[in-house]
Amino acid sequence: MTGISPKDRWIRRIPVRMTPPAIKDNTADVDRLVKGTEKALGGEEVGIDLAFSRKVPLLLREHGYHVRADLYKGRSSWHLVNIVAPDEAPSVYGLAVDLGTSMIAARLLDLETGEVKEETSFLNPQIHVGPDILTRIHFAGQEGGLQELQSLLINRLNQEIQSLAERQGISTKNMVGASIAGNTTMTHLFLGLDPYWICREPYIPVLNRPGLIRPRDVGLGIHERGVVFVFPNAGSYFGGDLIAGILASGMNHQEEFSILVDVGTNAEVVLGNRDWLVACAGAAGPALEGGVASMGMMAGPGVIDKVVIDPASGEFQVRTIDGLSPVGICGSGMIDLVAQLYLAGMIDIRGKYVPEKCGRRMRTIDEMQHLIVVFSKDSGTGETLTLSQAEIDALMRSKAAMHTILTTVIRMVHLEWKDFRRFYVAGTFGSYINPRSAIVLGMLPDLPLDGYEALGNTSLAGATRALLSLRKREEVDEIRNRVTYVEMNVNQEFMNEFSAAKFIPHTDRTLFPSVP
Amino acid sequence: MTGISPKDRWIRRIPVRMTPPAIKDNTADVDRLVKGTEKALGGEEVGIDLAFSRKVPLLLREHGYHVRADLYKGRSSWHLVNIVAPDEAPSVYGLAVDLGTSMIAARLLDLETGEVKEETSFLNPQIHVGPDILTRIHFAGQEGGLQELQSLLINRLNQEIQSLAERQGISTKNMVGASIAGNTTMTHLFLGLDPYWICREPYIPVLNRPGLIRPRDVGLGIHERGVVFVFPNAGSYFGGDLIAGILASGMNHQEEFSILVDVGTNAEVVLGNRDWLVACAGAAGPALEGGVASMGMMAGPGVIDKVVIDPASGEFQVRTIDGLSPVGICGSGMIDLVAQLYLAGMIDIRGKYVPEKCGRRMRTIDEMQHLIVVFSKDSGTGETLTLSQAEIDALMRSKAAMHTILTTVIRMVHLEWKDFRRFYVAGTFGSYINPRSAIVLGMLPDLPLDGYEALGNTSLAGATRALLSLRKREEVDEIRNRVTYVEMNVNQEFMNEFSAAKFIPHTDRTLFPSVP
Repeated sequence: MTGISPKDRWIRRIPVRMTPPAIKDNTADVDRLVKGTEKALGGEEVGIDLAFSRKVPLLLREHGYHVRADLYKGRSSWHLVNIVAPDEAPSVYGLAVDLGTSMIAARLLDLETGEVKEETSFLNPQIHVGPDILTRIHFAGQEGGLQELQSLLINRLNQEIQSLAERQGISTKNMVGASIAGNTTMTHLFLGLDPYWICREPYIPVLNRPGLIRPRDVGLGIHERGVVFVFPNAGSYFGGDLIAGILASGMNHQEEFSILVDVGTNAEVVLGNRDWLVACAGAAGPALEGGVASMGMMAGPGVIDKVVIDPASGEFQVRTIDGLSPVGICGSGMIDLVAQLYLAGMIDIRGKYVPEKCGRRMRTIDEMQHLIVVFSKDSGTGETLTLSQAEIDALMRSKAAMHTILTTVIRMVHLEWKDFRRFYVAGTFGSYINPRSAIVLGMLPDLPLDGYEALGNTSLAGATRALLSLRKREEVDEIRNRVTYVEMNVNQEFMNEFSAAKFIPHTDRTLFPSVP
Repeated sequence: MTGISPKDRWIRRIPVRMTPPAIKDNTADVDRLVKGTEKALGGEEVGIDLAFSRKVPLLLREHGYHVRADLYKGRSSWHLVNIVAPDEAPSVYGLAVDLGTSMIAARLLDLETGEVKEETSFLNPQIHVGPDILTRIHFAGQEGGLQELQSLLINRLNQEIQSLAERQGISTKNMVGASIAGNTTMTHLFLGLDPYWICREPYIPVLNRPGLIRPRDVGLGIHERGVVFVFPNAGSYFGGDLIAGILASGMNHQEEFSILVDVGTNAEVVLGNRDWLVACAGAAGPALEGGVASMGMMAGPGVIDKVVIDPASGEFQVRTIDGLSPVGICGSGMIDLVAQLYLAGMIDIRGKYVPEKCGRRMRTIDEMQHLIVVFSKDSGTGETLTLSQAEIDALMRSKAAMHTILTTVIRMVHLEWKDFRRFYVAGTFGSYINPRSAIVLGMLPDLPLDGYEALGNTSLAGATRALLSLRKREEVDEIRNRVTYVEMNVNQEFMNEFSAAKFIPHTDRTLFPSVP
């Protein structure tokens, strides 16, 4: 992984060889181990807790004062987690976790080699309490609610930790560290902190910088004396996931200006370079994730992720995941579909259906115009897959919000689109977006396509980097301290901009010279 | 207390006033509190644990962002323990504890004023398992033995903490810190560390420097987020009690050379000044504590603590504690008695009875000579109180051991008696010794009497100082690192010296010019 060296690990297993005690050398066992480890680390300070101290004399004698020590580096000194035989296998492992509101992704890493041993993702079990953050914040305020949300999450994570260990043939005790990135509310729920004030003016989190905690502080089932790094937040609406995103993008090291956008229900935007970082978040609505479409669903087998419409014949080519018969459409497919409908003239610049262009695909259901995307004979469900005018309207509002947020932030820092060289799109969803389609819709700016870079799950990527490298872990706090978070001021100017952005691609066509 | 300023406290309660949060100032509650506290401390770093973080938002809001914060200073930064209303009473308290093998002494201190609120002492409950350290070490090696010894101790301490709180009308949560000094084995048992290797060559403790631990690490019933400072040891036979003694004596700051002796079953000796400290310990035998005499007992009402014999009339004047009829004799009374017997010619320079001088007080019981110290008609028990030849012999061996240990250590550092200006006698027992009697016996060196200073319970005094002052707490580690512990080498020279010291005061009378 770029810029990450094994020498920079903050969770390590190192050989420690001591002289056995003697009458003339009566240093206590624990102090002997600590001194030996400090020497092996080139003089850095090492600490040890009382519970582990109790086990040291027998372990040292068992291994003849020649061991390997598992350690992690805290704020200022190293901490002994365990000692094992000099030839002990397997390695020390760590877990990088992206705590998404809907999906949780985890990655098991060998901390000696840096190798990804396995990656897994699963539904956030809190979804059963409420699909969105606000519902969960309210639930947390009820008697026992916070504890229930935390337990749901921790138990599910522990299940996964157990399965990972079993599949890898290791013990959960081999997992010495974890690195956790999530939005501010998810991080609060993970830590058992009441998110009550997050959604109430003036929107104050309990905690900005959780830093390093012990697994038992939250009940995480890795090595009990291990360590958990929890990403900080820069406010209620600027979470650790986005800080991890900045870390993963590396935009904070570049001379050129970049934009990082995490496209989702909330559009989170970061602008900047190695000298400054400005962040902003605004509600874009769930339409971008396909959440409002009747046929909308998360990416999975049979889900449409790409659409091409031949403008001449009006013929649809849909691509599905795994090539199965289509069963629904994901957010990125939606954006492709609507952009293609526009290019084929089937919707106008307001995003309204042009029935004469849609022909036999047009249906009126419940007094509303619907377009048949997939006829029942071709669908995997046996039903027709349709897109209603209302669904397009929702997407139009979302794409307008997205564009307006970007425009507003760029204006705030007195820059223009052309000043930006790179445009990073973060999030699993973002990695499926066809940037060309997003530009056609006017959702993303009309920059050269080679400037777009889809980074995938940057929250997980950032968590991984912070787990593997002390420099990166420390960079997390630097990023947090450098980011200026600006509140999106929804004033008249914003509303004017929003209205102008509700057209395809925009009322000001000069902003989108590449769109026909 | 000398040299201890309230400004040097490492457990403090300080006012912290914050600006309440606003849209333009959205720092999280916990970070706001931490920053405010750091500012109040003049910029020093402050940390907080996750469990307390959970309570901060409600507490801050309850007190309108104007609080007093209870803090302690760790190795490098301060830690928040609690926040209370700005006018909250009472104060923050701390507990200084001397963990003696037989007796435990504890002192409750107001950490704002430094005032001793109450002092208490009680039997070490481990006495029921075994009166001496060796028995307890063996007991700790049995299944569940270590846990039982630790529980006995901690439960008893917690009982006392509870009673102290009740009597003072405070909560145990007001006790934010504790400072614990004890010998190496007692400290191990307090910490739940197996003392198995302490009494086995090469005599290696589990741990030299416990430093700061959390109350819950051992189950101590003070504030759960408080802190416990545990004195370090410099080896199996040089414990935290003696390091506390050095701290209390202040000998490590003086230009002149001093001797510090803790007289007990083990004679522990420290020589040195501000430039160097050498320590040594040797078995002196229980005789010095009155432990072998049939009438020996610990100091208490009716116990003889001073004896004067008129050499002319052979009349005994005995003083008892509280002036009650005599019921027994304590160690210091024993030393007085035997010195007076010698000065009255009732024993010779070998410590053997001279029957013709003892007259009607001489009895033969079980074929052994006994001296009647108190006749039955005068005693509080209705029985005669006697001292046998065997008991004097034991005392002679102990006093000889004491003198030999002192002589040997002084010889090791190439100094002589006359090089020492001050002679500190530590221990509750030591404070009752009449130094003149100890000199007559040849147990302590023949230095000017104004050079002797009985310091009382120096372990408790040192624990108190370390609790009240960061400089003193840090000095504890400095002392530990500076002390050179030398093993008492019981070679032919030692044995020769020991034989010479088995006379009163010594075969070399020039060493004791003041003794007739």
